[in-house]
Amino acid sequence: LVSVLSSAIIVYRLPWTWKCSKLLMKFIHAGLNTIAMILAIVSMVAVFEYHNARNIPNMYSLHSWIGLTAVIFYSLQLFLGFAVFLLPFAPVTLRAALMPIHVYSGLTIFATVIATALMGITEKLIFSLKNPAYSASPPEATFVNCLGLLLVIYGALILWMASRPHWKRPPEENVKVLRPIGGTPEGTEVESTMTDGSNADKSDLRVTSEAARKQNLKFDEAGQRSTM
Amino acid sequence: LVSVLSSAIIVYRLPWTWKCSKLLMKFIHAGLNTIAMILAIVSMVAVFEYHNARNIPNMYSLHSWIGLTAVIFYSLQLFLGFAVFLLPFAPVTLRAALMPIHVYSGLTIFATVIATALMGITEKLIFSLKNPAYSASPPEATFVNCLGLLLVIYGALILWMASRPHWKRPPEENVKVLRPIGGTPEGTEVESTMTDGSNADKSDLRVTSEAARKQNLKFDEAGQRSTM
Repeated sequence: LVSVLSSAIIVYRLPWTWKCSKLLMKFIHAGLNTIAMILAIVSMVAVFEYHNARNIPNMYSLHSWIGLTAVIFYSLQLFLGFAVFLLPFAPVTLRAALMPIHVYSGLTIFATVIATALMGITEKLIFSLKNPAYSASPPEATFVNCLGLLLVIYGALILWMASRPHWKRPPEENVKVLRPIGGTPEGTEVESTMTDGSNADKSDLRVTSEAARKQNLKFDEAGQRSTM
Repeated sequence: LVSVLSSAIIVYRLPWTWKCSKLLMKFIHAGLNTIAMILAIVSMVAVFEYHNARNIPNMYSLHSWIGLTAVIFYSLQLFLGFAVFLLPFAPVTLRAALMPIHVYSGLTIFATVIATALMGITEKLIFSLKNPAYSASPPEATFVNCLGLLLVIYGALILWMASRPHWKRPPEENVKVLRPIGGTPEGTEVESTMTDGSNADKSDLRVTSEAARKQNLKFDEAGQRSTM
């Protein structure tokens, strides 16, 4: 589940996909998220059936509360994503307004899913390890703790990839830069913020995708003057 | 601890502080983080002493592993932050190179601390509630579950505030926009990325802080054309 979710998140961030059409990438993003949603529903059904078969109460733990909240928000996110960004009906202004929220929600749901998994691992270790107990640190406990730590590292890496501006899919259209006599540069941004994990400033100017990309990298390398 | 941490994170994001000097804000940011670090150390000492007094093993749980990892990275973050951004010795290029990493690490550590707290709450509820057990959902369990859910909502709000470009502290200096004959706009960014939670694109142009601010808001309102 986490790996499908993370593939869906970083699918725009793979430079070798930048030559593919935006629509294809959107379908892949939507498809991976649909698979993740199906996996989430299957696992939830499995948990409820397991609980019922063993006469364990449902939905009592913080793990279950936060997990269910995440799934509810995820289904909302998926529904809105389909309706606004995939179907061709939504006006561009609505897409632009919702994109920062879509990106933020996606990453926050991803982080919440990892936190839920960590709580689930903690519960499972406490309930399952009885003799020797979890607190006696049997090899299973150490092994699963390592898996949990790796999950955190993995999640942190995905969030890093999703928030680096130079891993952002370059814009597809060119844009004319308007420059009024007043001298204030006014850029018009045509790029969809779909790939914009960090919700970069709207005022940044782009000329052509390649030029803008190179320029970004140059600025990244050159660094910026800091006001101390 | 979480509230001090989050104050430290959003201290640059409060519009009424934008008239204060950058240096003062840096001191407040560093001071709040130092208080949070002291609180973290005090709580860890308390946990170890409690464990030792009750003959409970130390550092066996995933909660403790991830919590200790977070504290180690947090102390590194604090040390590097002091050395690079507060002391006046680091060159501007180093500051610019480290700032996106500083911002990313800070927010990731914050999210990890919340995940650790959630695991700790889960452990505590399982260990402490015995008769009736956690799974019987006594009022304490429901109450603490609600607190855990509020903690997630709180963390999500802080991350939202820290990643909105229009809540970013405006730059202090003015900047001359260089425009070569080729027509490619070349912006020089003087603003420190200290306040840049979202690590916005380096190529964005700023003229004066107020003008840039208004322009940003205008673009936010006007939205962007999306490439479907």
